[in-house]
Amino acid sequence: MKIIKTVEEMRQYSRQCRQRGLRLACVPTMGYLHEGHASLISAARHSHDEVVTSIFVNPTQFGPHEDFERYPRDFDRDHRVVDQAGGTVIFAPSVDEMYPLGASTSIAVRGVSEPFEGAFRPGHFTGVATIVARLLLAIEPDAAFFGAKDFQQTLVIRRMVHDLGIASDVIVLSTIREADGLAKSSRNVYLTADQRHRATALYRALRAAEDAIHDGAYQKQIIDNAMHDVLRSVDGIEIDYASAADASTLATPDIFEAGARIVCLIAVRLGSTRLIDNMEFTIGMKA
Amino acid sequence: MKIIKTVEEMRQYSRQCRQRGLRLACVPTMGYLHEGHASLISAARHSHDEVVTSIFVNPTQFGPHEDFERYPRDFDRDHRVVDQAGGTVIFAPSVDEMYPLGASTSIAVRGVSEPFEGAFRPGHFTGVATIVARLLLAIEPDAAFFGAKDFQQTLVIRRMVHDLGIASDVIVLSTIREADGLAKSSRNVYLTADQRHRATALYRALRAAEDAIHDGAYQKQIIDNAMHDVLRSVDGIEIDYASAADASTLATPDIFEAGARIVCLIAVRLGSTRLIDNMEFTIGMKA
Repeated sequence: MKIIKTVEEMRQYSRQCRQRGLRLACVPTMGYLHEGHASLISAARHSHDEVVTSIFVNPTQFGPHEDFERYPRDFDRDHRVVDQAGGTVIFAPSVDEMYPLGASTSIAVRGVSEPFEGAFRPGHFTGVATIVARLLLAIEPDAAFFGAKDFQQTLVIRRMVHDLGIASDVIVLSTIREADGLAKSSRNVYLTADQRHRATALYRALRAAEDAIHDGAYQKQIIDNAMHDVLRSVDGIEIDYASAADASTLATPDIFEAGARIVCLIAVRLGSTRLIDNMEFTIGMKA
Repeated sequence: MKIIKTVEEMRQYSRQCRQRGLRLACVPTMGYLHEGHASLISAARHSHDEVVTSIFVNPTQFGPHEDFERYPRDFDRDHRVVDQAGGTVIFAPSVDEMYPLGASTSIAVRGVSEPFEGAFRPGHFTGVATIVARLLLAIEPDAAFFGAKDFQQTLVIRRMVHDLGIASDVIVLSTIREADGLAKSSRNVYLTADQRHRATALYRALRAAEDAIHDGAYQKQIIDNAMHDVLRSVDGIEIDYASAADASTLATPDIFEAGARIVCLIAVRLGSTRLIDNMEFTIGMKA
């Protein structure tokens, strides 16, 4: 496997691939890879000759009191995961390489970036959009693969790539979960055994929303209540939000139309660890 | 000459050129081309096989009370200018083509975009940075050529291209002037004969700054006064700014170091027409 540290070498490699007629995909990550990342790399490799996994813990998408410093890092472990998943390149630039003169250029996406994570993490999505653009312009992939766990992020990235006309397809694949439903996340390593047990409440809350929708719920409040009831029943969970929203715009009308594609979004804090999860549903026809 | 209207066709054409080993330059413009643009096209063609002149009056860089609607447009005239200057392609997308779902993604550059034009035209440079990124990502040129008349704009674009890692060189060429020194500008067409005559004050003010610097001035106030004296001596000129600044950062210290590279920047209004101009100088050694 090839390891690349500079934008210049990355772009050269990518252009050589293209000249040889090879198809190249990328999987942008912050490292500390888990089965979710591995499934993205495997899927990307299935349809592409080369798969670049970028590993970069991006400081500009963390708030001042967030976990940038303690975010887990283990390059050797990541190397093995990428290798086993069929990745062909790791692109692991330094912070200085990505932001050589500080970070005075930023890319903001209005609309889908504003509610939910955008409200709780001011500046987060501007950091995400900026670094993803920078990575896509360095890697120049035919396609970039992202996990659905960061649902709102995928909307922001799709919109940014579309608006700027970045020549890469954005492909979003399903969230990979533990046996008990907890979404795979690099941040799960922060959880104590007890917190890890309680964290299943996110999945159970989403399933409760699903049950409500299957039972005919089309009112936002009823779907939200189903999630809140589950989350509130678990000690030590502080809810940032648990809400149904339009899956394309993240609008939150009181009532969803029959056939509407919606997403249920959850963010909670368990001690000092913040967890997010989501599930997409289609609102049923009223009886 | 080839005329291209869509991003998709533009990118295909550019990639075909690259595959054939051709070097491609672009000259981003808002049309109503003058000798300044022609000189950029000629210079670009001198060092490149293909030169794409983009013609797009970008709505997002005009303020709500600025001259977007009345900005002069004449495609047939532009076509002749490009042809005579040796341009090979005109890329003339519609507003819908560049902003198909509105304009919810924007690129902001802190620092060099903030003083001078940034202070008088809020949002202007965000509009400029966003459309230039969008054009460069569509055209994918080896080099993009800009005129020095929009001095601050060239700093903003250089910074944006550098920060995002857009794979195009930014090349800035000297301002082209009328015989009496007035910088060539599409907006000169707005001037009445009388205003056209008074507009030479910008050039004379810059020459007065030059004289002051040659006479040993290194204090910002003395250099600024030299410009203000000339501008104030002409009726009907309202000064937005006339100021010396560091040519790299646009910082405005009271005193410039010997050997410092500075720029004198002027913006004035003559009736309803706003004109800008600038000149670069090196501060001399003190006696």
